[in-house]
Amino acid sequence: MQHRVAAIGGDGIGPEIVAAGKEVLDSAGERYGFDIAWTDFDIGADRYLATGELLTEEDIRELSKFSSIYFGSIGDDRVKPGILEKGILLAIRFHFDQFINLRPIKLLDGVETPLANKRPKDIDFVVVRENTEDFYVGIGSRFAGRREQKTLEVVRDLYSVRFGLDVETDADELAYQIGVVTRPGAERAIRYAFDLAAAREKKVTSVDKANVLSDVYGLWRDVFTDVATGYPDVRTEFNFVDAVTMWFVKNPEWFDVVVTPNMFGDIITDLGAMIQGGLGLAPGGNINPAGTSMFEPIHGSAPKYRGQDVTNPLATVWAGSMLLDHLGEHEAAAAVLRAIERSILDGYVTRDMGGAKKTSEIGRHLASLVKTV
Amino acid sequence: MQHRVAAIGGDGIGPEIVAAGKEVLDSAGERYGFDIAWTDFDIGADRYLATGELLTEEDIRELSKFSSIYFGSIGDDRVKPGILEKGILLAIRFHFDQFINLRPIKLLDGVETPLANKRPKDIDFVVVRENTEDFYVGIGSRFAGRREQKTLEVVRDLYSVRFGLDVETDADELAYQIGVVTRPGAERAIRYAFDLAAAREKKVTSVDKANVLSDVYGLWRDVFTDVATGYPDVRTEFNFVDAVTMWFVKNPEWFDVVVTPNMFGDIITDLGAMIQGGLGLAPGGNINPAGTSMFEPIHGSAPKYRGQDVTNPLATVWAGSMLLDHLGEHEAAAAVLRAIERSILDGYVTRDMGGAKKTSEIGRHLASLVKTV
Ligand SMILES: CC(C)[C@H](C(=O)O)[C@@H](O)C(=O)O
Ligand SMILES: CC(C)[C@H](C(=O)O)[C@@H](O)C(=O)O
Repeated sequence: MQHRVAAIGGDGIGPEIVAAGKEVLDSAGERYGFDIAWTDFDIGADRYLATGELLTEEDIRELSKFSSIYFGSIGDDRVKPGILEKGILLAIRFHFDQFINLRPIKLLDGVETPLANKRPKDIDFVVVRENTEDFYVGIGSRFAGRREQKTLEVVRDLYSVRFGLDVETDADELAYQIGVVTRPGAERAIRYAFDLAAAREKKVTSVDKANVLSDVYGLWRDVFTDVATGYPDVRTEFNFVDAVTMWFVKNPEWFDVVVTPNMFGDIITDLGAMIQGGLGLAPGGNINPAGTSMFEPIHGSAPKYRGQDVTNPLATVWAGSMLLDHLGEHEAAAAVLRAIERSILDGYVTRDMGGAKKTSEIGRHLASLVKTV
Repeated sequence: MQHRVAAIGGDGIGPEIVAAGKEVLDSAGERYGFDIAWTDFDIGADRYLATGELLTEEDIRELSKFSSIYFGSIGDDRVKPGILEKGILLAIRFHFDQFINLRPIKLLDGVETPLANKRPKDIDFVVVRENTEDFYVGIGSRFAGRREQKTLEVVRDLYSVRFGLDVETDADELAYQIGVVTRPGAERAIRYAFDLAAAREKKVTSVDKANVLSDVYGLWRDVFTDVATGYPDVRTEFNFVDAVTMWFVKNPEWFDVVVTPNMFGDIITDLGAMIQGGLGLAPGGNINPAGTSMFEPIHGSAPKYRGQDVTNPLATVWAGSMLLDHLGEHEAAAAVLRAIERSILDGYVTRDMGGAKKTSEIGRHLASLVKTV
């Protein structure tokens, strides 16, 4: 059996960690009888700086031939914040309509959490982040400005009516950002969360801020309520985003599946990453069940460690386990996760986790562990 | 010397905690030679349910005669989320142009934090939350819908151009929310933060998400950079909001003054409240230096504990200390905070902090402590 998988190492430490991940996945394949044919893409800052290209038409055409992309990280000190993130990472998520951003928050055995008195059994939930709407749609003064003057005028007009203010019309003086939630967009993410919960502890928590951003999150709640009626044995709960940051820290054991719009998902999954031991241990999947999905560590490209072979590859390896799950290789996926746990319990870890191993050493070690664990 | 102060107990446990706070402040006045003339307002859910009134013209006229409002909490199970929050709390913040929401994040001696290995010296910073703009302006599909159809059409149009989609025109299907940041709005908040930092550890961290919500937070960063040039001896730093939730948990000692737009401020100050020991210990000030300011615990109205005399009043008493500072009674303000600390160290606390004292007992106890501490 052969799987074809695209790989984008990306920037900074991205290529090193993806290399480690590939080694582990290949080895899992040897054990479980499949073979991965990797196709590498040179998408990232270097190419952008050399050619001005972010995600090209050709990249898209080629990537669309794969059901899975293994992604390292994006971001470079030489490029203004936002350019690569929007032009590459978000562009892939949006273009391939990867409407689920799935982030397991799970404290593995042997990992230290910054929370006092919390153990692995207390920290084990999943965040389903809607991944194509909300304030990530990229519509605001700059976008509209390029296109036309009409929106700017409408927003100014609304703003001054709302506040009885007279805002100066110099373009620099007022910026606005528009978030959009649609019924079908919210529904498919929420439904995914309920399906997941049905196979877990049967509880879904919606995280929003419907008491203030009532327009978008009012619709979100309506959709949530509608979807919930189809799952009578799943318990449901609404949390405001501000409150949920407290409960993640105080009572993570309350959560099973958390579903949330894009921007709040971004925020609470970083907090979730920290309680599960930090960014070195936090994977994410950008999923389009019927298209091209992408699996990545949720951390950034840490340019200053580039080429030093010191970065913790576990988040990336874990993302690889999610990728295997996505390919239907569930046994192999589980073995990869067991190998990660074994390696942590043995203290075979990088320095951020108190060890002294190199990125490549961890890759090699896990590749060997995964054969037997 | 007499100070006139408005008091709004509000809903749920609000009246009990404000009563405790008043007692402490009155007592501090006796020691430091001032007297507070309280004027109570019956703004809240009960009046709303009886009369339909939220914040009336007359309330506004009367409240505007005061430089300070002592506020309990708002929110009631009998009313849909958002109505009271927007119609009362946010209405006061916006109407009186309370552009600073000031939230000290400080772990007091003797208080337990959910973070492992963190002590009072590690958790001591201030969040300056911009309080009148951003996604709190209340402009979105519903607001616009009531007013006119034009914006909805423009947003749909932008959305479909952005995604090449054809979104159905049924009003229920697409909701949008508009956030606004203006240069003067951002500037006054950022300047306040720098002034504060100049009198503290001389470091300001801006928290935004300029890599994705580039329209509003791009302007925010530009303003931050401009303001910073006027404070050459204050160190500055940009953090993305997702990352900052991690550092609050992992390295709270990094922060001195944090300045952030309204919505992210809402989120990170709840997280801040938790690391300083929970909502029972988190005060906030809504400040218009030249107008009417409002001081409140940042927690909600906890309707189910209403009338039980069990709620922790310390956040409210601490908010009272901020109110005294605002009135220029700095010595009294400091004494109130010392009384809180003394009481905690003595274990004279409510059950959320491991004690068995009642709300009113704490009020009485602090009123007596503040005379000598
Ligand atoms: C890099 C950035 C655009 C991205 C996001 O905001 O989604 C990241 O923070 C993430 O969570 O994957
Ligand atoms: C009650 C709510 C409207 C309010 C807010 O979002 O500002 C609260 O969470 C706060 O932080 O004071």
